[in-house]
Amino acid sequence: MTSRITETLSGHYYTDPAIFDAEMASIFSELWVCVGRADRVQSPGDYFCPTVGAESLIVTRGEDGRARAFFNTCPHRGTQICDAERSGHARTFQCPYHLWTFDTAGRLIGAPMLSKLEAAGWDRGAGGLRPVALEELYGSLWVNLAETPSSLVEQVNRTILARFGDLETFGRYGFEGLALGASREYDVRANWKLAVENFLECTHCAPLHPDLCRLVPTFRSGDASYHGGANGAELGTGIDAFSMTGAASRRPLPGLVREDLRRFHALVFLPNVLVVLVADHVVLIELFPIASDRTRVRCEWLFDPSAVTGDPATLDDAVVLFDTINRQDWAILERTQLGVTSRGFARGGILAPTEIQIHTFDAFVLERLGHERASRDS
Amino acid sequence: MTSRITETLSGHYYTDPAIFDAEMASIFSELWVCVGRADRVQSPGDYFCPTVGAESLIVTRGEDGRARAFFNTCPHRGTQICDAERSGHARTFQCPYHLWTFDTAGRLIGAPMLSKLEAAGWDRGAGGLRPVALEELYGSLWVNLAETPSSLVEQVNRTILARFGDLETFGRYGFEGLALGASREYDVRANWKLAVENFLECTHCAPLHPDLCRLVPTFRSGDASYHGGANGAELGTGIDAFSMTGAASRRPLPGLVREDLRRFHALVFLPNVLVVLVADHVVLIELFPIASDRTRVRCEWLFDPSAVTGDPATLDDAVVLFDTINRQDWAILERTQLGVTSRGFARGGILAPTEIQIHTFDAFVLERLGHERASRDS
Amino acid sequence: MTSRITETLSGHYYTDPAIFDAEMASIFSELWVCVGRADRVQSPGDYFCPTVGAESLIVTRGEDGRARAFFNTCPHRGTQICDAERSGHARTFQCPYHLWTFDTAGRLIGAPMLSKLEAAGWDRGAGGLRPVALEELYGSLWVNLAETPSSLVEQVNRTILARFGDLETFGRYGFEGLALGASREYDVRANWKLAVENFLECTHCAPLHPDLCRLVPTFRSGDASYHGGANGAELGTGIDAFSMTGAASRRPLPGLVREDLRRFHALVFLPNVLVVLVADHVVLIELFPIASDRTRVRCEWLFDPSAVTGDPATLDDAVVLFDTINRQDWAILERTQLGVTSRGFARGGILAPTEIQIHTFDAFVLERLGHERASRDS
Repeated sequence: MTSRITETLSGHYYTDPAIFDAEMASIFSELWVCVGRADRVQSPGDYFCPTVGAESLIVTRGEDGRARAFFNTCPHRGTQICDAERSGHARTFQCPYHLWTFDTAGRLIGAPMLSKLEAAGWDRGAGGLRPVALEELYGSLWVNLAETPSSLVEQVNRTILARFGDLETFGRYGFEGLALGASREYDVRANWKLAVENFLECTHCAPLHPDLCRLVPTFRSGDASYHGGANGAELGTGIDAFSMTGAASRRPLPGLVREDLRRFHALVFLPNVLVVLVADHVVLIELFPIASDRTRVRCEWLFDPSAVTGDPATLDDAVVLFDTINRQDWAILERTQLGVTSRGFARGGILAPTEIQIHTFDAFVLERLGHERASRDS
Repeated sequence: MTSRITETLSGHYYTDPAIFDAEMASIFSELWVCVGRADRVQSPGDYFCPTVGAESLIVTRGEDGRARAFFNTCPHRGTQICDAERSGHARTFQCPYHLWTFDTAGRLIGAPMLSKLEAAGWDRGAGGLRPVALEELYGSLWVNLAETPSSLVEQVNRTILARFGDLETFGRYGFEGLALGASREYDVRANWKLAVENFLECTHCAPLHPDLCRLVPTFRSGDASYHGGANGAELGTGIDAFSMTGAASRRPLPGLVREDLRRFHALVFLPNVLVVLVADHVVLIELFPIASDRTRVRCEWLFDPSAVTGDPATLDDAVVLFDTINRQDWAILERTQLGVTSRGFARGGILAPTEIQIHTFDAFVLERLGHERASRDS
Repeated sequence: MTSRITETLSGHYYTDPAIFDAEMASIFSELWVCVGRADRVQSPGDYFCPTVGAESLIVTRGEDGRARAFFNTCPHRGTQICDAERSGHARTFQCPYHLWTFDTAGRLIGAPMLSKLEAAGWDRGAGGLRPVALEELYGSLWVNLAETPSSLVEQVNRTILARFGDLETFGRYGFEGLALGASREYDVRANWKLAVENFLECTHCAPLHPDLCRLVPTFRSGDASYHGGANGAELGTGIDAFSMTGAASRRPLPGLVREDLRRFHALVFLPNVLVVLVADHVVLIELFPIASDRTRVRCEWLFDPSAVTGDPATLDDAVVLFDTINRQDWAILERTQLGVTSRGFARGGILAPTEIQIHTFDAFVLERLGHERASRDS
């Protein structure tokens, strides 16, 4: 880590609707965006309706076992088919306006005027739900709104390699085999980039996160970063697990080795996933930008399947901990959103050496937008 | 009717505020817009304040018996004179700010500083309420915001001739003599064009309107159109009237001939009136666009004056029927408004042969806007 | 006063967000804006957080006795430091995100990573709160958001000289020595210019302000202006003071001379202060534009310090009077805001000879914006 002092993005990057639209186009419509764990659609017909950018999608698993995503809009006259954010199980999706009916692979399988359309030479193959690229990787579902999506594996593995230097450390957590134990959703009145930047430094941990600092005392120093290098941070003396009590109530994930057992790793899968790895569980935080000053956040807690079969309350020592941390973060980000609109922040703020990873993230944003970094003197 | 398959307007026509503004300028400010039945201002001094586009108007009848419309704004300093949507009876209209006072013909008849203004050479004739063109036709009130309005009779009769081939069929309903029996207003979160398009096809009738299909069974087929030609649709066997019960509780309108008695006719007076003609009453639905995703709707039920003199509950068999149909339509249109914003609908949807009249309406909109129809492949 | 008849600004000057933004840039960011009486920050550490244009500010008095203003934003990462509109007393201001801490002169005096920043060669002098120009004049606090502020004394005294012909008349009220006895804040859904224009004529006084006309009967005529000249208006026969009862419950301000004792003077310190001078108190109305159709208003009642030490209820005869007048004005301005949006007011309204000072104010606005007055015939 260098000890360079630099500056944040200019204030309008956090407030200007035109910047937000450009980010939705060049970041959230070009990169793969994680919409949640694959076990949200465990069986054929399971579905949920995430909102990615301005788009409501239907994510479902077909009878062939393949998960797919579709725009949540009838191709006939444009009616929204499912309520946004709804989830459930369905054999078919039917538009309530004219009863166009689609199977779980998105194919048009019925409509009152279908025979008439076909008699007029129309191909019902053109009447299916409009697809959105979806892939499963590391047990999560990723969608891509681009016409010709880039490689998901490359996008994700590049992050893992940059963080750990190899794929093995991450691999030991066995993401494909983890089970979704709990989830929480939050409506945060702040720009999505403030949430990423907040995750990339831990000088705010001492003022804001007493439980976190109790469990991982190096975060107390104001010197630490979530991403201090391949070794991560370490649990404090007398702390047996990253849980509210500090006691271990679950066995470590089966693939881990001795050096992993007291580690706390954090990493970011740009553009929208914040990840925490500890010995007995994983936390995934997915960001869904809604507007320049609003972000929907979904947090998922993953465990070994053996830990998830019983009473959900047994997971509370992990869930309440990060839910508390989340709420502390969202409150300060909402207050920061109020301040970045100021003319006093028009040229941005100051990044200390402990915040250098924010500079790297900001550079990523500027590059995707095709912007030069503004000189502070301009 | 051809059996051509074509497409709807592109999605942004239903969502883009710039398209909405262009429609307000080139359609709702250039054409005559119906604001309600003339008997809303039956006697001199009766008034109501409709909102046409962004404009609050005062519609009133003068002592000379002529109905007029004015901008609901004091010409002195701009204060709104009457509450928007208010109705009532007044001898004069007085601005509460400086007490400028106008008669029911809009003339300035008093103001505290009037003598001073006149002493300074000012002509009080320049201080009247700013007029908006208003004409009565077929018993309804029509306003036109254009500087030099076109011919109302031509605008309306063109529709009648296109629909029936002559003026006589429509004329037999005796619009000038009909009485306003009931009205309902609705605040619909959908684009006004979705309401017109919905009225132009009846394949949604089977899924959405069970009462309508019970009374007019041909609508059940998904094949029917409200506008199938000069003959309209026919009441079902055993149905005596277009009423909730199917029983006839009123005599047919006096001008009708035998071939009209079991007919259901629908037609649209562009840009803002949807009309249903049945033997014993008429339904007028007036659309008042508020924003790209919002429309105020007024529904009026007209009867022979002899049917309106008594207890309003006697009209319920007609009123509850179409009020129910209206509410079913507005609910699905609000759901459609959510879907047309999707990138999956950016190029629009599909129009079946039974929906060909929507294509004609869309062509009208595009022509008024001076737009070419986008090629689906572009 | 001439008796010329002229016109108001065109309607869009009161409604267009682009005009509002231009006014914020060329008027409220270039001129000195009054944010309240100096005794709101009487002692070092007293502070309040006014909103000027889009900017939340911290106004506080340092240990050196000097009042200062700062952007209410942490220079580190942009978090809002104090709640907007909050007031209180503080020894330091601390950002809750990373605990950057500032003294009442705005200097950075502590931060968890401060030593690290300084070790890396950073000058903590660059990390203070971002200052905004603030000066005290006539006992009030004035801020200026411009990079190089113009002269406050010139701005204010120019108004006094234009109004009275000398500085002495105004000086006799002894503004520096007056004490803040009461204040009220209002959220008004109207353009700030409507509030100024309303204050510049009194033909609305008879319809709207019965108490005012009872106390100052010349306002009843519709002929009067608040600014009839250096002599102001006079209390009515039998009225001893400008109070709800008309009785005098306080001694005149000590600097006044006999000819001041029954006078009612009104003047406007552009851009944002409306002032009423009477023998025993002063009313200051400060306008804080929020949007083209919204203005926050603060009203302050000033008295001789001897009158303020006791029970606040003793001030009610003055406070309730102008609070009532204020509420009558805000109600009609909100109604006027609804009307100025009309196409019927697009070219503006009519100014009678008694409203000529509005013409002068409108000319000031146009000049600041660099606009020509639109010809009515264009």
